Amino acid sequence: MTAPSRPFDGLLIGASLATMAAPSGYGEIADGALAWKDGVLAFVGPRSELPGSPASLANDVIETRGWVTPALVDAHTHLVFAGDRAREFEMRLQGATYEAIARAGGGILSTVRAVRDADEAALLAQSLPRAQALLRDGVATMEIKSGYGLDFDSERRMLRVARAIGDTLGVTVRTTYLAAHALPPEFKDDADGYVAALCAWLPRLHGEGLVDAVDAFCEGIGFTPAQTRRVFEAARALGLPVKLHADQLSDLGGAGLAAEFGGLSADHVEHTSDAGVRAMAAKGTVAVLLPGAYHVLRDTKLPPLAAFREHGVPMAVATDCNPGTSPLLSLRQAMQLACTHFRLTPEEALRGATVNGARALGLQDRGVLRVGLRADFVAWNIRHPSELCYWLGGDLVQTVHAGGARLA
Amino acid sequence: MTAPSRPFDGLLIGASLATMAAPSGYGEIADGALAWKDGVLAFVGPRSELPGSPASLANDVIETRGWVTPALVDAHTHLVFAGDRAREFEMRLQGATYEAIARAGGGILSTVRAVRDADEAALLAQSLPRAQALLRDGVATMEIKSGYGLDFDSERRMLRVARAIGDTLGVTVRTTYLAAHALPPEFKDDADGYVAALCAWLPRLHGEGLVDAVDAFCEGIGFTPAQTRRVFEAARALGLPVKLHADQLSDLGGAGLAAEFGGLSADHVEHTSDAGVRAMAAKGTVAVLLPGAYHVLRDTKLPPLAAFREHGVPMAVATDCNPGTSPLLSLRQAMQLACTHFRLTPEEALRGATVNGARALGLQDRGVLRVGLRADFVAWNIRHPSELCYWLGGDLVQTVHAGGARLA
Ligand SMILES: [Zn+2]
Ligand SMILES: [Zn+2]
Repeated sequence: MTAPSRPFDGLLIGASLATMAAPSGYGEIADGALAWKDGVLAFVGPRSELPGSPASLANDVIETRGWVTPALVDAHTHLVFAGDRAREFEMRLQGATYEAIARAGGGILSTVRAVRDADEAALLAQSLPRAQALLRDGVATMEIKSGYGLDFDSERRMLRVARAIGDTLGVTVRTTYLAAHALPPEFKDDADGYVAALCAWLPRLHGEGLVDAVDAFCEGIGFTPAQTRRVFEAARALGLPVKLHADQLSDLGGAGLAAEFGGLSADHVEHTSDAGVRAMAAKGTVAVLLPGAYHVLRDTKLPPLAAFREHGVPMAVATDCNPGTSPLLSLRQAMQLACTHFRLTPEEALRGATVNGARALGLQDRGVLRVGLRADFVAWNIRHPSELCYWLGGDLVQTVHAGGARLA
Repeated sequence: MTAPSRPFDGLLIGASLATMAAPSGYGEIADGALAWKDGVLAFVGPRSELPGSPASLANDVIETRGWVTPALVDAHTHLVFAGDRAREFEMRLQGATYEAIARAGGGILSTVRAVRDADEAALLAQSLPRAQALLRDGVATMEIKSGYGLDFDSERRMLRVARAIGDTLGVTVRTTYLAAHALPPEFKDDADGYVAALCAWLPRLHGEGLVDAVDAFCEGIGFTPAQTRRVFEAARALGLPVKLHADQLSDLGGAGLAAEFGGLSADHVEHTSDAGVRAMAAKGTVAVLLPGAYHVLRDTKLPPLAAFREHGVPMAVATDCNPGTSPLLSLRQAMQLACTHFRLTPEEALRGATVNGARALGLQDRGVLRVGLRADFVAWNIRHPSELCYWLGGDLVQTVHAGGARLA
């Protein structure tokens, strides 16, 4: 006797749902049910509206409690790197000057050296636990940038490791080419030459399927708007979307530049002007807020949150996981920092880590619990979604599913 | 053939040790070895000085890597409670006034109502996961306060649950009687009457073996120094050590009062005067720093850290785990916040969560890796101890041992 055919592959019951499917509020469904088929959500609604008994609907019935949200989307990370900069963090707290740290071999170029020295296996071995930590705290989609290689082979290696992380863990990894992150020693005093070189590398890397988007660090200590524009033009020539590290330390008009190129997002944006906000609003460019760096750097300049709200600029929240300024291994902790430092509401923070995070990556198939979208969701041990922004530390995850498969 | 008798019960090799056994520095032993017998450390030193091959020394040989530190000691928690205050946290971020929150049933008295409504099993079921979260991030000794019951039966129930947590998890729990935490509704406008009542409850609770120390909330919105003194005298009459929530919001001379009674610690101490610091130094009273509340309340008044250092007041770091002002489930995250907000060095923070945490609880048998002390230690997946204060989120623990037994 064969098993009767059931309409769903899997069914989750017993929890409330925060669907995030409405423009405001959690889109709450009390005593909800969630079912999926072929990796896609096939039922999202009150349990009472299920078209039959749970056992008749799916072989895999998960009885849970607490709340289910869309799986989290971390739209900005630099989690592929070698070494760490904890000793530099310690030296700063011991009173060392930036010069002393640089003399001791610190700063971003120390990470570049470590990445250049690491082969692909070593880079994967060091980076995978960070991606696993994000996954264990609810992230099923993560962006990962290059930008610590700064030569063709090392940038390529970083992007290959990012792809390998997605293959290994079953999470979605969106890669971003950020060779325009810092000036490598071999191009000292020749930023234009380096920009020309990294623009020439891009088609080759794209040809290998390693690049989903292109980013740059547009800043006084990074690349100029003119150089950024050249990087964006190289991306546009290949049909690749852009995003930008914009206006973190000063207002160079980065947010407006990202918007001009129809950018997916402008990230950091602490110093973005009102004109920049309006440009973002006009083009639907997402503001990716990175409260981890704000916290670690003890920054005091808040992003123009009121203007983002007023003009309807979608706000995402991301970890910025990186060894220098944001050693965050949990998007939930970034959400806590966004509430504490930026006074986001927990609902805004959760929206920023789900639907707006997905939007910042150009992904329309996730970030919301809705029939037809991917079955990416997290069941949490919580009584209310606000708890996701409330606790520091702890382990609130019951399960993480992506495409209907349980990953954690 | 019987197994040959071996000198140690267990042996750990392959890691560096941060013994914390010297007045400054990590007390590093590179490529160290740690052995224990009958729950007590029997060898702490370089692996090369082991008196034989690992297999000849112990049946249980743990081959690890990274670093081993003393198990963490969380010297200040309120982790036994029912309900949570995440909705109140959310209302504040939505712009609700304190009056509106109070009208909606928020504030500490909402936790008191939830605790009074919870029976012992419910209170344990809700509180145990918080203690487990602390343990999973390296804590093997935790203080737990009463103070949300505010009547005899409910305070007793809290203390019994605290003891049950220790029995269930195998961690050391030190209980603190904090009935002088807030004024219960039945003593509205009669603080002196409540203090008399809670002093009368103390001998009965102590007689049941439920009280290891006595605490009070000495503050304009709490109890006066005169009332605090009465609580301390009741403790002294029973030979119980005292500690104090001192000088958090204003300087009422709480630290000096705690020192006058030979207090184990004065906690919070943001507003402590120079005279208070000197009194603490003279009596060896530990300053317990609570950066979680500072973070969540967005406080700006730093404790007198330079004065503590100058006068040699030992500084501990604790979670203050509580539902209103410090929803922290990780002592490591408190250490991160201590470094970020208070500019403690990672070494000071680790000292504060080990040797000085133990001192704040009056425990001389732990907090340092030294032969003759308890075999309480954590093996961490890190390359340097400064990483314990560097990462936000993640899971750095390989194993936690207490009394030589593996707990996590
Ligand atoms: Zn970044
Ligand atoms: Zn407290």
